[in-house]
Amino acid sequence: MSFGRAALIGCGLVGGSLMAALREAGAVERVVGFDRERAHGEAARARGLVDELGTDAAAAARGAELVVLAVPVRATADVCAAIAGAVGAARLVTDVGSTKSDVVAAAEAALPDATRFCGAHPMAGTEKSGPEAADAALFRGKLAILTPGARTSDAARAACVAMWTAAGARTRTMTPAAHDRAMAWVSHLPHAAAFALAAAVGGVADEVAGLSGGGFADTTRIAASDAIMWRDIFVANRAALLDAVDACAGELAALRRAIDDGDAAAIEALVARARQGRARVMR
Amino acid sequence: MSFGRAALIGCGLVGGSLMAALREAGAVERVVGFDRERAHGEAARARGLVDELGTDAAAAARGAELVVLAVPVRATADVCAAIAGAVGAARLVTDVGSTKSDVVAAAEAALPDATRFCGAHPMAGTEKSGPEAADAALFRGKLAILTPGARTSDAARAACVAMWTAAGARTRTMTPAAHDRAMAWVSHLPHAAAFALAAAVGGVADEVAGLSGGGFADTTRIAASDAIMWRDIFVANRAALLDAVDACAGELAALRRAIDDGDAAAIEALVARARQGRARVMR
Repeated sequence: MSFGRAALIGCGLVGGSLMAALREAGAVERVVGFDRERAHGEAARARGLVDELGTDAAAAARGAELVVLAVPVRATADVCAAIAGAVGAARLVTDVGSTKSDVVAAAEAALPDATRFCGAHPMAGTEKSGPEAADAALFRGKLAILTPGARTSDAARAACVAMWTAAGARTRTMTPAAHDRAMAWVSHLPHAAAFALAAAVGGVADEVAGLSGGGFADTTRIAASDAIMWRDIFVANRAALLDAVDACAGELAALRRAIDDGDAAAIEALVARARQGRARVMR
Repeated sequence: MSFGRAALIGCGLVGGSLMAALREAGAVERVVGFDRERAHGEAARARGLVDELGTDAAAAARGAELVVLAVPVRATADVCAAIAGAVGAARLVTDVGSTKSDVVAAAEAALPDATRFCGAHPMAGTEKSGPEAADAALFRGKLAILTPGARTSDAARAACVAMWTAAGARTRTMTPAAHDRAMAWVSHLPHAAAFALAAAVGGVADEVAGLSGGGFADTTRIAASDAIMWRDIFVANRAALLDAVDACAGELAALRRAIDDGDAAAIEALVARARQGRARVMR
């Protein structure tokens, strides 16, 4: 399948990678981009991720069969309002945001025809950002979670599956709420833990600089992620994330207690449980 | 330089990798191994990490110019007592443990001539374990921290530098106490955080299985580490680790508060601080 003309609103890592992948697969013919940061748009055009730039989001979206929103999740409502009058030709309007309840609600409220909106979240970000880091292979073999809303048409849903399949991803469908609860645990909490860890060790950076190994590097890799993006995700997924943070803080407190007590058996049991838990989550 | 005959007490990942590297560099001629777990010793011999197996630690150590202890740190005192009468020929007795104050104290108390003991800690473990995972390239370009005690001779210290240089590592010298304080932050705390995170997410494994991406995988990679080894490290480095755990728990609590309050500016500031802290530690 080909979408013919596509619009990319937000020319960062994820959106740029998606267009690169779709172009490679022959699933789009011409891509018009827009980014509020002019330099991002220009870089995306220079790298061939988009063919041309629209003067604003509506101009980019006008006439496109496929409209992809790849903006910070908090900007979804504003962008949908801006393009509302320009998406009449679209078979699919979709997004790539890391939270879905807020995005789907904002899109349904702002778009004139919500049947053609199907939210999605590819599980393939990196700690990098910007069009310079875009990579057509980013989604290959990765999972893209589709979160159709109550009004999403079967045609829009099928088009969204086809788009991610063309980009090399596997797809799975969940409700926006179930997606957000699951992501609080497997994505947002790991980021919160990595931020807390990196901030804590950063507090003694002068003492330990140059002494860290692969463990610190890997455990804090995602702490190098974009601050604005994660601020918005944390705000958007507050309730589910607080549950997850509390569970993690509880385990850390239990481990602290065991260390303080010199309770070797309790430490060993927690470590063994961690190991098993990881294996079960990643199965 | 060559050590001629070497003894490896404990034939796991780190000790096995070290002997493989030294053999490749021509720094040892013959290696006699011993492991309390017979299968580990046999596997190390089958892989050529050691040439033969001693019937016990003393038998393996007897006549060796180089004696490497690669056992869980808590076993150091017992192993040193066992080999005390057999290390007369050794120019260097050393270890590879992740904590150093306890190891150096145990070795100095048990060995008849502590001038020839120089503790060391290569910053190059992985979450794997056992001789099957041994790799001659494990230490290439990595840092090995040497922690000579008050009685360590210059000759033993130089031999330890030469050994790690032959294995491909860079070396740096610290006191055992300074090593343990630094490791509490850059190694032991990341493990504690990874254990807490993996245990927490493991608690909802049925809901989230198959939904995790690279962020969870990397952040919890070291949570797959050996439970016995980390139990011993946490017990041995209790005081310094508690300070580090408290700092991390404090940052996590601050992040929780900011999320609960919907305080976007506070979230963004903490994330930005985490990012900077990571860069300063890894510089």
